[in-house]
Amino acid sequence: MGKILVIGCGGVAGVAIHKICQNSEAFSELCIASRTKAKCDALAEKLGGGKTKITTAQVDADKVDELIALISKEKPDVVLNLALPYQDLHIMDACLATKTSYVDTANYEPEDTAHFEYKWQWDYREKFKEAGITALLGSGFDPGVTGVFSAYAMKHYFDEIHEIDILDCNGGDHGYPFATNFNPEINIREVTAKGMYWETGRWITTEPMEIKREYDFKGVGLKEMYLLHHEELESLALNIKGIKRIRFFMTFSQNYLTHLNCLENVGMTSIEPINYQGMEIIPLQFLKAVLPDPASLGPRTKGKTNIGCIFKGIKDGREKTYYLFNICDHEECYREVGSQAISYTTGVPAMIGAMLVMNGTWSKPGVYNVEEFDPDPFMEALNKWGLPWEEDFQPAMVP
Amino acid sequence: MGKILVIGCGGVAGVAIHKICQNSEAFSELCIASRTKAKCDALAEKLGGGKTKITTAQVDADKVDELIALISKEKPDVVLNLALPYQDLHIMDACLATKTSYVDTANYEPEDTAHFEYKWQWDYREKFKEAGITALLGSGFDPGVTGVFSAYAMKHYFDEIHEIDILDCNGGDHGYPFATNFNPEINIREVTAKGMYWETGRWITTEPMEIKREYDFKGVGLKEMYLLHHEELESLALNIKGIKRIRFFMTFSQNYLTHLNCLENVGMTSIEPINYQGMEIIPLQFLKAVLPDPASLGPRTKGKTNIGCIFKGIKDGREKTYYLFNICDHEECYREVGSQAISYTTGVPAMIGAMLVMNGTWSKPGVYNVEEFDPDPFMEALNKWGLPWEEDFQPAMVP
Repeated sequence: MGKILVIGCGGVAGVAIHKICQNSEAFSELCIASRTKAKCDALAEKLGGGKTKITTAQVDADKVDELIALISKEKPDVVLNLALPYQDLHIMDACLATKTSYVDTANYEPEDTAHFEYKWQWDYREKFKEAGITALLGSGFDPGVTGVFSAYAMKHYFDEIHEIDILDCNGGDHGYPFATNFNPEINIREVTAKGMYWETGRWITTEPMEIKREYDFKGVGLKEMYLLHHEELESLALNIKGIKRIRFFMTFSQNYLTHLNCLENVGMTSIEPINYQGMEIIPLQFLKAVLPDPASLGPRTKGKTNIGCIFKGIKDGREKTYYLFNICDHEECYREVGSQAISYTTGVPAMIGAMLVMNGTWSKPGVYNVEEFDPDPFMEALNKWGLPWEEDFQPAMVP
Repeated sequence: MGKILVIGCGGVAGVAIHKICQNSEAFSELCIASRTKAKCDALAEKLGGGKTKITTAQVDADKVDELIALISKEKPDVVLNLALPYQDLHIMDACLATKTSYVDTANYEPEDTAHFEYKWQWDYREKFKEAGITALLGSGFDPGVTGVFSAYAMKHYFDEIHEIDILDCNGGDHGYPFATNFNPEINIREVTAKGMYWETGRWITTEPMEIKREYDFKGVGLKEMYLLHHEELESLALNIKGIKRIRFFMTFSQNYLTHLNCLENVGMTSIEPINYQGMEIIPLQFLKAVLPDPASLGPRTKGKTNIGCIFKGIKDGREKTYYLFNICDHEECYREVGSQAISYTTGVPAMIGAMLVMNGTWSKPGVYNVEEFDPDPFMEALNKWGLPWEEDFQPAMVP
């Protein structure tokens, strides 16, 4: 039994908060804080009446003083950071000042660039150790569950893991010719960034979307996927001893890529303002206003996601392969928590990570990634809280 | 020797005015009038100093009174209308009131819809006959030269023409991933409108872009082209006696169509205003502001246009085919008149039509399309004034 402070009130936070309220045995008290208190109040009103006692607060997560004051007043057992990635360090600073455990789902990024580097947060290791509190980084799905899957495979099925392929497939269809699940700027940044993977002790960089593969996903079917850099590659390359290659693939439809490419070609994704009838307007901002609101996709998205890891390694001297994955249905998620699977698959592990840190199962002074803890309680919780996993001992391998 | 009044000062007018000044033997005086007098003045300054005396004037072509006052003051021998299509009737009214001959290049359209119908202008036949003045409709390239080609083929090579395929190929490359030669709204209207052609005495309607063919164009190469409705089909179906089928094809690259399709899908071609930060902004207007200015394409467009007609019919009891076409080079046009071939191929025939009406060669009270006059002097003038034609007596036919 403990108290959690959730900072942020977007789509992922909405799911995590739903799950926190379902799990009142662990979470007796919840405070929801964000820049816009009215959003927190609306959520509190919708979910109140259960056993978890809910309060709300206004906070600007860019201001460490405000964060310290809030945490000092609320005295939570754990802070779950679901705000923006460039606010991670502010919230970690406030947790240090108040000696409160910390959990997030996405690594810190400086506001002006995309980095996918844990460097900044790992630099807090000594400070958290000295303060005697736990910071759990990246407790979403990917990163998050993918790290737990890796630790679970290592613990139960392998003596050595040589290769990991993380496959992130969204087979959802919202019925629009084109729309983005979240900020199109982030989507565009992903597909225009160089790819990167780890092989034989070094990072190999590819051109954007250079490596394309097909895979037949259970529950979804055959999809085209592309090698991207993704933040968990960085921690898994260090934490899975003996790993020789680790790659991350995400599915994108040809239709999606064609639209994105055309919009980029004509200049609609540019962040350079243009003069329109005497006003300075950023084309990408105008595009966002023309595209369907990402929030409107939830009720109309059908289909499933399938995210998991394929492992290849050695057990008892013999070569072995193993596939751990979760299939999540967009419509079922929407019925349960009012969000589709993209938010659901991140919000549920966020709640689980916070629960394990709070109840001491995953408590250890310092800054850690999920694969550094015992995976078994997390795996059990996934089955219980809506993200049951499946395994395949003879999976098709990625070519 | 005579005086011409040109109404309009856009790209086509610029070419026609260049050609009028080159042809000072026919045009001793020129008045350029448009809504923005400064544009006329700039052109007059650039082209002055030759033998053609140039004056300029301000006129709002939506106002018949202003037009009558202008024509009464300038007393031209012919009015060349290169203003907007929905101003045709106003200018015809002013010509009637002042008993002045009239020439245009594009048929009248009501401001709110695209019609490709001569009905409104043909309704002026009796009035022009009674006034004893000539109206020559559609003296551009297509319509225009395509009608002259048809009359020429009929006069010299056929007893009966059974089939005409008009092929409009733009093999130009401006080096941008996507840009439109003129108002993208008109481009979009063309490719999203239903196709139409004339066969065995009736009009046959197709879905937009339903009929696609390939053709290997001399000077350009193999291109994909699509059956569209185009205004000259209407007059040629009436004026070429015995015609059984007449079609119009225009080339569009797959890249161009893909971009247009994506922009339409995301809503960027919509003319319904959206709310953007409290302002009402029409997406298509914003798109125009983001796309390259059509005027900027001229200096960077390479390649050629190839526009012409393939005829099939009977001569002396035997079946016969014949292809008449013009190849025009974008860069040569730009060097000569500062516009690329799209404007050039329309502006030159506009000057020629005005010259023939003015010097009495094509003078006949009433309202006429180009194919109703003797084609020989027009064909001769095309060779002289920059649009030499070629012929092929064994052309490949469109499948």
